[in-house]
Amino acid sequence: MAGNSFGNLFKITTFGESHGEALGGIIDGCPAGITIDFEAIQNDMQRRKPGQSSIVTQRKEEDEVQFLSGLFEGKTTGTPIGFIIPNTNQKSDDYSHIKDTFRPSHADYVYVKKYGIRDYRGGGRSSARETASRVVAGAIAKQVISDIKINAFVSAVGEIAIDKPYQDLDFSKIESNPVRCPDELIAQQMEAHIKEIKKQGDTVGGIITCVIQNVPIGLGEPVFDKLHAELGKAMLSINAVHGFEYGEGFCSAKMKGSEHNDSFNPDGTTKSNLSGGIQGGISNGMDIYFRVAFKPVATLLQKQEVLTNKGEIIELQGKGRHDPCVVPRAVPIVEAMSALVIADYFLLNKIHQTK
Amino acid sequence: MAGNSFGNLFKITTFGESHGEALGGIIDGCPAGITIDFEAIQNDMQRRKPGQSSIVTQRKEEDEVQFLSGLFEGKTTGTPIGFIIPNTNQKSDDYSHIKDTFRPSHADYVYVKKYGIRDYRGGGRSSARETASRVVAGAIAKQVISDIKINAFVSAVGEIAIDKPYQDLDFSKIESNPVRCPDELIAQQMEAHIKEIKKQGDTVGGIITCVIQNVPIGLGEPVFDKLHAELGKAMLSINAVHGFEYGEGFCSAKMKGSEHNDSFNPDGTTKSNLSGGIQGGISNGMDIYFRVAFKPVATLLQKQEVLTNKGEIIELQGKGRHDPCVVPRAVPIVEAMSALVIADYFLLNKIHQTK
Amino acid sequence: MAGNSFGNLFKITTFGESHGEALGGIIDGCPAGITIDFEAIQNDMQRRKPGQSSIVTQRKEEDEVQFLSGLFEGKTTGTPIGFIIPNTNQKSDDYSHIKDTFRPSHADYVYVKKYGIRDYRGGGRSSARETASRVVAGAIAKQVISDIKINAFVSAVGEIAIDKPYQDLDFSKIESNPVRCPDELIAQQMEAHIKEIKKQGDTVGGIITCVIQNVPIGLGEPVFDKLHAELGKAMLSINAVHGFEYGEGFCSAKMKGSEHNDSFNPDGTTKSNLSGGIQGGISNGMDIYFRVAFKPVATLLQKQEVLTNKGEIIELQGKGRHDPCVVPRAVPIVEAMSALVIADYFLLNKIHQTK
Amino acid sequence: MAGNSFGNLFKITTFGESHGEALGGIIDGCPAGITIDFEAIQNDMQRRKPGQSSIVTQRKEEDEVQFLSGLFEGKTTGTPIGFIIPNTNQKSDDYSHIKDTFRPSHADYVYVKKYGIRDYRGGGRSSARETASRVVAGAIAKQVISDIKINAFVSAVGEIAIDKPYQDLDFSKIESNPVRCPDELIAQQMEAHIKEIKKQGDTVGGIITCVIQNVPIGLGEPVFDKLHAELGKAMLSINAVHGFEYGEGFCSAKMKGSEHNDSFNPDGTTKSNLSGGIQGGISNGMDIYFRVAFKPVATLLQKQEVLTNKGEIIELQGKGRHDPCVVPRAVPIVEAMSALVIADYFLLNKIHQTK
Repeated sequence: MAGNSFGNLFKITTFGESHGEALGGIIDGCPAGITIDFEAIQNDMQRRKPGQSSIVTQRKEEDEVQFLSGLFEGKTTGTPIGFIIPNTNQKSDDYSHIKDTFRPSHADYVYVKKYGIRDYRGGGRSSARETASRVVAGAIAKQVISDIKINAFVSAVGEIAIDKPYQDLDFSKIESNPVRCPDELIAQQMEAHIKEIKKQGDTVGGIITCVIQNVPIGLGEPVFDKLHAELGKAMLSINAVHGFEYGEGFCSAKMKGSEHNDSFNPDGTTKSNLSGGIQGGISNGMDIYFRVAFKPVATLLQKQEVLTNKGEIIELQGKGRHDPCVVPRAVPIVEAMSALVIADYFLLNKIHQTK
Repeated sequence: MAGNSFGNLFKITTFGESHGEALGGIIDGCPAGITIDFEAIQNDMQRRKPGQSSIVTQRKEEDEVQFLSGLFEGKTTGTPIGFIIPNTNQKSDDYSHIKDTFRPSHADYVYVKKYGIRDYRGGGRSSARETASRVVAGAIAKQVISDIKINAFVSAVGEIAIDKPYQDLDFSKIESNPVRCPDELIAQQMEAHIKEIKKQGDTVGGIITCVIQNVPIGLGEPVFDKLHAELGKAMLSINAVHGFEYGEGFCSAKMKGSEHNDSFNPDGTTKSNLSGGIQGGISNGMDIYFRVAFKPVATLLQKQEVLTNKGEIIELQGKGRHDPCVVPRAVPIVEAMSALVIADYFLLNKIHQTK
Repeated sequence: MAGNSFGNLFKITTFGESHGEALGGIIDGCPAGITIDFEAIQNDMQRRKPGQSSIVTQRKEEDEVQFLSGLFEGKTTGTPIGFIIPNTNQKSDDYSHIKDTFRPSHADYVYVKKYGIRDYRGGGRSSARETASRVVAGAIAKQVISDIKINAFVSAVGEIAIDKPYQDLDFSKIESNPVRCPDELIAQQMEAHIKEIKKQGDTVGGIITCVIQNVPIGLGEPVFDKLHAELGKAMLSINAVHGFEYGEGFCSAKMKGSEHNDSFNPDGTTKSNLSGGIQGGISNGMDIYFRVAFKPVATLLQKQEVLTNKGEIIELQGKGRHDPCVVPRAVPIVEAMSALVIADYFLLNKIHQTK
Repeated sequence: MAGNSFGNLFKITTFGESHGEALGGIIDGCPAGITIDFEAIQNDMQRRKPGQSSIVTQRKEEDEVQFLSGLFEGKTTGTPIGFIIPNTNQKSDDYSHIKDTFRPSHADYVYVKKYGIRDYRGGGRSSARETASRVVAGAIAKQVISDIKINAFVSAVGEIAIDKPYQDLDFSKIESNPVRCPDELIAQQMEAHIKEIKKQGDTVGGIITCVIQNVPIGLGEPVFDKLHAELGKAMLSINAVHGFEYGEGFCSAKMKGSEHNDSFNPDGTTKSNLSGGIQGGISNGMDIYFRVAFKPVATLLQKQEVLTNKGEIIELQGKGRHDPCVVPRAVPIVEAMSALVIADYFLLNKIHQTK
């Protein structure tokens, strides 16, 4: 209810503030007997980590996961997997200047209004640092649904966007550049643009596309828990996300039914896949694809007007180490949330598979 | 878990197939002591009902709600409100031709694959007729949060779209035309376009914009249950919805932080509201606004290829009474789902208001 | 949250007041493809029904179930099963005398204090009439877990109790007498006692024992959702229940470990079964057995002191048609709640059965 | 779903095995702004801790709680409270002898059957060591409902039982003896009995009584979530508990209605309180009292027959450090679970308090 859990059968609950002792979480409902690939988990953590390239924040966060339970001799036991990620490099001093102020388009103000108190250091609970816990859980979820392939990538940074369908892209190129864009020419433009934005002390938004392949037919629950509805919620729960569309999304609103319908092949697959792999909220075995819109990061390294807790408007110079563009680091987060949704519905669907 | 419930503290569970005995639902958690305005409920039902104008399906559905519990002498008692909407005008014969076939971009195929059985009459549970129950619950939710104003309207039909910000629209005009578009000139174009599409036996998609005003600060729960994440899920759970964006949505992905940030006024309101009334998943007291993309209705009154349960592709002529464009009738559904989300978070927020 | 739902994967939500239009409920999560035995459902309804013998209330309630959804050509479809039980024989006049009074050991007073309002007719929502909906759901749950045998029976009425272990009883005798006690000699004593109590205008408590046989190993979830914890909650949620014990229950508190431990046979069964078929919250394949204590019905056909809503104590003569002893009619309710718990855990356990 | 969470609005999720790195949990939904009394938490931990007296196990467990989040400058912030309790003194060698065996009346066997794998060291997840996390959460819950007084105590050990009503006991004496029995004479007999049992290498069961005072009227939700049903589930989820009764419990089954009914005083209190402070599942403001039956600890320091994973029955000599009687250490656990239930319903009841 208080909003720190996600999923039902495969469920993650997270805790932790940006500058507290540690982040962490509990994964409950992970099936027993899975041999965990710890390297794969740490690899996803590296992809989310600050400081990994010149276009992301140079903050140092070690992001080393410590598993405390739920594993025995390298395998899951069916009991809850508790883990922590110590905050080893908090510089709380960096944030003393925002103690009494509310920054524009941050959660500072609403937290104080809602709770009457806030941990102002680095955004506290509203910091995207929380997503480190999601990446841990998502990396394990991927291992639960290991036959299903999830690939997310940056498809737009500001006005610069890939203009090809995902089918024409080579996913093996995603990690070949710091932007995580599989179109290498576009990737170079994006990188240059982010560097330029950074120089200005400004930030820029972007879009991540995610493609989920080899999905069994039947995942998703009507009526309220349609597969895409839960995917949408998962994505919209990621910091800075302002939009979600699957299949043709907002473009489909402009189309006619005769253009949009996906005709069947005799084997039940469809000739086109404008529906994005989901019908009536249930996977149909075709590729699931969707796009996630991220607003620009609100923390600027420029002067901005802020509100003080005394009701004054003053100018404040942004400082610290922040991302000029969040989407390259958000790619593993989108994948993690996708994996959490799919794993949850995958387990739930077992109910229908035998009497 | 099986997906037929929505909400936590103010919770709706629905049942019913398109051509069964009745639809209905249970509203659990409605606060006690509210004098119910039954006319307001029936009015929202009328807005959703087929046959209300020449641009929607001419199917007749009486959609009369019968309340069976939870009310005493016109007031809510705090106990669950059970209600049914009898299906008085089912013509099951209309659907015998689809008994053994799977229509493109319908849920027929995935239901059979998931459950091994389907009620093929009129789409069964996957029919949008289910949304009648949501409108009942939403109409009651509106009365729980009566100070909060929710206005949805059609902002695009195919390529025809309102090009003004919502602030320049007169919401009192929404019900003045059958399209439910407050810009009367655009409304006429939309109406003409829908008629043309209908003549072709085709369908067309569209967009609904929703504006929620007078929202108290503090609604929404971090981390996973951000207010806009739950609104997004609510909207994506509506039949035919393929996209959701709030605030500037996908446009924000193109913007710079210096353009997108909303500066404060001394009273805590903001000068601009590109964030759409939500920060960090929590309402900030400014208007909440979002857009919902609907794909075109999949049922065409044209010949289409369908798959048979024997794995053959045959041509089938669509017949029956169907909507050429779903958005005019979906306006009260978007409002209903908004009201359900807001009422739920409104009740949940009481926890934080006193020790 | 508001307390009208039970279960997770196999979930029942009920609505309805004693003297409203109808009772009813929604069963969500019932697996698809089950051919429903409607006679078995109605048979359980008959066992719960008032007026079935001279030792129960002579109220007439038809208790005919109408299914509104979720079934197609006699089979479950995987969609929610909505049902209603019309209240055909309410005599609201019977209750006008209690409109302004609070009866001792009834829920009248707390409902008004909690909700500020109550439907005073026949106890409203707090009436045991609500359990009719549970019996419907339980009868369907029994059909989901048809290999598992659930037998409840009356083991005590007041001071009169069966003094044999359940293994020495013939369950086929349970329905052979109006008390539902398989020990026919004891049954006669119980029946005579209830008639005597009834003559006095008084009521008496009793105990129901329930035995669940042929349970697969592995049902139940540690830590908080132990199988017996959920069974206990299920039983304690039945009107008038004041105690629950499984295995040796309160007697085990007097025992030594060397007496209580159940030694294994080589095949994993145990020589004794003092643990009641559950270890660490998980079924071990042995018989599950438990006892449920019912307090005497609070409504007496005698003069009693009542509190008025003006804070006066007055004498009121009880009238109407009430049970002198609730346990004979509660037998199918205990079975129904048992079936709901077992069906829910049975479905949940599928997660662990394959990767 | 996987059973490691308890509560809804005030929710605890726990993780950890007896001999893993650490135990811990996440408390989600704790209201903001509460100044935490850390000493009170540690004090409850001490009461649960092994080695505190000569009648409990001499195992050393430091049980020092480390809070990782959700607190700022000593106050709750409304964000999840993550905590860990490192396992500093595991002697895994102690358990190698049970690696391939299943002990009678332990969870060893069912865990392997359910999950296909088990962490055999010290009982793993099924160890009562898990309750340390509950005590932490319960100690915080007590501070949320600080006006409500919860007192649990040992009322029976084997055949030795307090024979006075709780009203005649002095709760300030509970902590004055190692048994936690407020009747000092009986306490001495219990202590002597436990020592005797210990000498035999045997164990003995017992009963804990709990009294909750100063409870506001209105806590509890009909129908399925009655206050005593949730209290019952909470208690039955504690290791070794086999029975729960509230008010007169199993005794009420022997009573007549005219004896059992609690007559009102003009102020709404009742003259007697045989109902145990709850009517229709809702607190009525009178004292809530209930009894919890614990079976004897299954681990004996005697030879016992065990089953091997090869299907052989062999004799095994129990060793290690175990409790001869669990009830003295279970007193704070009963209190903790009570506090969790009451805090949850206390928050939930806020919904009904304003429109």
